[in-house]
Amino acid sequence: MRQSNLLATTLREAPAEAETVNHQLLLRAGYIRQLAAGIYTYLPLGRRVLRKIEAIVREEMDAAGAQEMLMPSMQPAELWKASERYEVYGKELMKLNDRHDREFVLGPTHEEVITSLMRGEVSSYRKLPVTVYQIGTKFRDERRPRSGLMRGREFLMKDAYSFDTGWEGLDDTYSRMYKAYQRIFERCGLVYRAVQADAGAIGGEGETHEFMAISGIGEDTIAVCSACDYAANLEQAEVHTGAEAVQRNVSNLPAAEKFHTPGIRTVEQLEQELRIAPEQVIKTLIYQGGGQVFAVLVRGDHEVNEVKVRNYIGASEIALADSGTVRAAASVESGFVGPVGLSLTLLADRAVAAMTSGITGAGERDFHLRDVVPGRDFTLEHVADFRTAEEGGTCPVCGEGVLHFEQGIEIGHIFKLGTKYSEKLGATVLDAAGQSNPVIMGCYGIGISRLMAAVAEQNSDGQGLIWPAALAPYRVHILQMSVQDEVQTAAAEALYEQLSKLGVETLLDDRDERAGVKFKDSALMGIPVAIVVGKAAAGGKVEYLDRRSDSKEVIDITEAVSRVTSGQNG
Amino acid sequence: MRQSNLLATTLREAPAEAETVNHQLLLRAGYIRQLAAGIYTYLPLGRRVLRKIEAIVREEMDAAGAQEMLMPSMQPAELWKASERYEVYGKELMKLNDRHDREFVLGPTHEEVITSLMRGEVSSYRKLPVTVYQIGTKFRDERRPRSGLMRGREFLMKDAYSFDTGWEGLDDTYSRMYKAYQRIFERCGLVYRAVQADAGAIGGEGETHEFMAISGIGEDTIAVCSACDYAANLEQAEVHTGAEAVQRNVSNLPAAEKFHTPGIRTVEQLEQELRIAPEQVIKTLIYQGGGQVFAVLVRGDHEVNEVKVRNYIGASEIALADSGTVRAAASVESGFVGPVGLSLTLLADRAVAAMTSGITGAGERDFHLRDVVPGRDFTLEHVADFRTAEEGGTCPVCGEGVLHFEQGIEIGHIFKLGTKYSEKLGATVLDAAGQSNPVIMGCYGIGISRLMAAVAEQNSDGQGLIWPAALAPYRVHILQMSVQDEVQTAAAEALYEQLSKLGVETLLDDRDERAGVKFKDSALMGIPVAIVVGKAAAGGKVEYLDRRSDSKEVIDITEAVSRVTSGQNG
Repeated sequence: MRQSNLLATTLREAPAEAETVNHQLLLRAGYIRQLAAGIYTYLPLGRRVLRKIEAIVREEMDAAGAQEMLMPSMQPAELWKASERYEVYGKELMKLNDRHDREFVLGPTHEEVITSLMRGEVSSYRKLPVTVYQIGTKFRDERRPRSGLMRGREFLMKDAYSFDTGWEGLDDTYSRMYKAYQRIFERCGLVYRAVQADAGAIGGEGETHEFMAISGIGEDTIAVCSACDYAANLEQAEVHTGAEAVQRNVSNLPAAEKFHTPGIRTVEQLEQELRIAPEQVIKTLIYQGGGQVFAVLVRGDHEVNEVKVRNYIGASEIALADSGTVRAAASVESGFVGPVGLSLTLLADRAVAAMTSGITGAGERDFHLRDVVPGRDFTLEHVADFRTAEEGGTCPVCGEGVLHFEQGIEIGHIFKLGTKYSEKLGATVLDAAGQSNPVIMGCYGIGISRLMAAVAEQNSDGQGLIWPAALAPYRVHILQMSVQDEVQTAAAEALYEQLSKLGVETLLDDRDERAGVKFKDSALMGIPVAIVVGKAAAGGKVEYLDRRSDSKEVIDITEAVSRVTSGQNG
Repeated sequence: MRQSNLLATTLREAPAEAETVNHQLLLRAGYIRQLAAGIYTYLPLGRRVLRKIEAIVREEMDAAGAQEMLMPSMQPAELWKASERYEVYGKELMKLNDRHDREFVLGPTHEEVITSLMRGEVSSYRKLPVTVYQIGTKFRDERRPRSGLMRGREFLMKDAYSFDTGWEGLDDTYSRMYKAYQRIFERCGLVYRAVQADAGAIGGEGETHEFMAISGIGEDTIAVCSACDYAANLEQAEVHTGAEAVQRNVSNLPAAEKFHTPGIRTVEQLEQELRIAPEQVIKTLIYQGGGQVFAVLVRGDHEVNEVKVRNYIGASEIALADSGTVRAAASVESGFVGPVGLSLTLLADRAVAAMTSGITGAGERDFHLRDVVPGRDFTLEHVADFRTAEEGGTCPVCGEGVLHFEQGIEIGHIFKLGTKYSEKLGATVLDAAGQSNPVIMGCYGIGISRLMAAVAEQNSDGQGLIWPAALAPYRVHILQMSVQDEVQTAAAEALYEQLSKLGVETLLDDRDERAGVKFKDSALMGIPVAIVVGKAAAGGKVEYLDRRSDSKEVIDITEAVSRVTSGQNG
C-alpha cells in the first residue's frame, strides 16, 4: 500500500476525552474514529488489525472443532422474555420496534437465538456434540461507554456455543476451548492470565473463567497466589478458611452490654475515638435484592463482597438498602444497626462466626453493644464466605502462598452454562434410551475489538504503538526520505515491489513530507520494522529500524530483505 | 469436516412460505434458517458460501485500489436529517433511542457516516483520490420481506465509497469499479447483465448502473436491445424518439368537439364500446408529489413511467392522486378528466406531442372530446419521455435493434453521486489553487447475501442446489456407503485425509445412514463432486459423481484424487 493513498490521518494530540494510552494512540495513529459515544469507525489500519485477530480466532476455533455460522443482530424480544433475561439486562439492551410494532432486541449475546435454533435442528444425542461460533457485531447500551474500544456500545465479538449430552462432554469441550483461548491470546502477543470468575448475567451452573489482559487500566482486580497457580477475579476470589474454624466455649463469656456512643457511626470512628480495633467490630449492612431485605455481617476490617452475597441469595442484582428501608427494617438509622434482636435474615461471614465476641450497633441511636457473642446473641444460620479477599491474605487453595492483586482487562470469558437456557427454551435431545433431556451447554466469548485495544495498551512507548508482528497492519514500513530523489525513488519502489512479491505486507511512505514527519508517523503507527531509504540508497544501503527495541542499523538492502523474510523482528 | 458433526439438518419439504427455488433449497439443504420475517441465521454451510463470496469481493476490491474499513451500524439520526434522507427513507429506516433518549438509525447504507468522516480526515486534494469499502450488516425495514435472502430486513452488503477532486477522476474510479464488479460476478458464476438504472433514494447527479442476475423471479424488468449493447432497467429505459419528431400543420384541422360517452371511463371501454383505437386516445392522469398536483398525458396504448415523471418533477415520491384530489383539481371524477381547460401543469409524453389530434376526457361527466390538437387545445410546455418502454419497441440508442424484456435480481448498483452528500455534510477539500470545493463522490454496493440467493436460484435442478466451484461450501463430498464396513472406512478416511492435506475442502459423510439418504442429501447440498466409497473400494475403485452434469463414472481412487486436484469439475 502506498501511504499517499492510505486513509490514515495522524493527529498530534488526542481529543481530551481519550484518557487511556490505547485510546489516545489508536486515535492519533489513525486506526479508529469515534462516531458517537462508545461507537467507532475502524479506519483501514484498524480494520487490518481486526482482520488479523479474526483470522487467528478463526484458525483456532476451527482447529478446536467449532463450526462458523452467523446469527442476526435483530432478535425478537419474546426470546429474551422466554429466557428471563429481558429484565436482567434492563437498560443495557438496545431495543427497537419495527414498522409493525414488533419489539426487537439488538443482540449483546446470542444464547437465546442459538438455543432456540438448536431446538429445531437437533433432536437426537447422535448429532451431538456440536460447537458453533460466529464473529460479528454486538450491541450493549453501556451507561458510561469509555476508554475507546474498551467499553463500547457497538463492538466486535467472537461468541461460541457448545452442546453436549452430558456434563463429561461439556468438561471436554470446555477444556478444548480453554486451550484454544490460550493459543489465541499467545498468538496475539498478550500478557494475560486465566482466572476463576463469576458468571454474571450469562449465568449457568458450572465453572467459568475469565481471560484477563494484565494492565493497570483494567477495570477488574485479580487475586493471584504467590505459590500455586490460583488466580481469581476479586469478585469471586475465595477467602482462606484456615484460622476461622476455631471452637468456642461460650458458657463463661459475659453477657452483652450496651454502652453510649453518641454520634459514632463508623468503624473508623470506633477506632479513632474509642480505641477499638476494627477486627473486634461486627459490621451490620442492610441489603435489598431478590425481593427481600436482609443483613450481611462482616468483621470491621473486612469488606462485603456483593457478588458472593448475590450468588448466595440467588438474586440477579443486590444493593445497599436506602435509608428509609434501613429505618423500616431495623427501627434505627444506619450506623447503629446491629444483629441482636434484628428480625431479618442474617448472612454472617465466616470470620464473624469465628469471633469469640464482638462489638455491634445496639439497634438504638447513639448506642453500641459489647461482648456480643455470635451464635448466642444472634443466630448463625447462614454462615459462608461473604467478604472480599485481601491483598496479602493466604491463598484459599494451597494455604501457603500469599495473594497479590493485579488489574486486568477482560478479553475472554468461558462458561459452563449447563441447562440454564436449554430448559427455558426447550432444547432437548433424546438419549440412547429414548429419554428426552435438555442439552448441556457452554458458551465462550472473546471481545475482538477490545482485544485490539488491550494489545495496544500493552504494546506502546512514548513515541506510539508497537504492534506484535502477528497483529501489525503491515509488517514493514518503507520510509523514502525524499520523493524528489530519483535514486531513492528507484530503490524504494524496487524494495516495495520485491517485498510485496514475497508476500510481505508493506506500507510505502511515498508522501511528499519531511523526514521528521515520516519518522514520527511511522513510530506512532507502530509497524514492527521500518526501512529507511535515504541518501545511502545510492550505495545500496538502507537504515533498518526495529520498532520494539528502538534500534537502528545501516545495512545492505539485500540484507534488509532477508531479515524481514526470515522474520527475526517484530 | 465430518458430516456427523456438521450442523446441517436437511428437510424433506420447505416451509410453505418459501416460494422461490433458492429460498426452498437453501432452507431444505441446511444453509439458512429464519429467525423472524426477513431475518436469517446462516448455518455453517451458508456461512461458508458467504465467506467465499466475501473473499472474492475483497480480492477484487483490493485489486481495484479500494481500502477496507468498518463503519458502525448505529448512526446518529442527526446525520440522516442533515442529508435530508431521514424523511426520504421513512419507515424503511430502523430507528431506536438509546438510554439517554438520543435517536439512532440502523444503517441501511453509509453515505452519511463516510462523508462526515471524510470531512474530518481529508482537507487537501493531495490526499485524493481515495476509495474505501466495507463488508457488513445492513438494516432495512422492508414492508414485505420476501423470497428468503432476496429481500431481507437484516442482510450483508459490500458498500464502497469513492472521493475524487473532479468528475474526470470519478469517471476513472467508476470505470475501475464497474470492471471489478464484472470480475466479481463472473468469478461467482452468475449469469448477469449491467444495465442503466435509476438512482432512487441514493440519488446523485451522474450515471448509475445496476448489475442484474438474470432470473425469472427477479423483481426488476430489464429492456435489452437485440442489436447493440444497450440494456436498462425498465424504470429508466428510454423510448426511441424516431417517428415522434413529426411536423404538424394544425391550421386545417377541425375544432375539438364534445361527444356523449355515458359511463365510459377507460381506454378499454372506448375501444370496445366505441371502436376507438387506443393510439387515438390521450390519457390524462392526475398525480401528486413534491408538494404539487399535476397531470401526465400519455397515449392510450402507453403506460406512464412514474420514475421518469418523479425525476422530471424532482420529487422523491409521487403517486396517483386520490379521488378527492382529482375532483378538486379537475372538477370532475377520474375517467372524464382531460387536458383542455385544465389548470394544472401538464406533462406530455413525446408520443402525445407527436399526435395530430386525439380523443380526451371532456372535463365533464359522461363526455369526451374528439379532434383535440396538442399545442392548440392544450399547452405543450413540458414535453419529455414520460412513458414506459415497450417490449418490441425500437432501441433508443442504435435505433435499429428491437427491445426485449428480461427479469433481473439486482445484485449490485454503482452510482456517480457527485456532490449530493459532500455539499450537505460539508466535505470539502482545497484544490491546488487554495480554493475549497466539495469532493466528488461515487458509491458502489453489492448485496452479499442476496448474491448467494441469486447464485442458488440460477444453479439448481430437481434434486437440489448445484454450486459453482468458487462458491461451494466444500469442493468434494465423500459418501461412505456403509460405516460398518471396515474396508470402506479405511478407504474413505484415507481419501479424506489425502484430500484435506492437498488443501481440498472436503466433507465426509460418515453418518450411519442409508445410502439413499446420503445420495439425496448430497445432491440437495449441491457440492460439485461426490466420491462414493462403496463395495468397489475393496478393489481400489470409487464412483465419481459430477453434480452439474449429473454424470457418474467408476474410476480408481488415485484417478479421483487427480481429477479433483486438477480442478476439472464443478
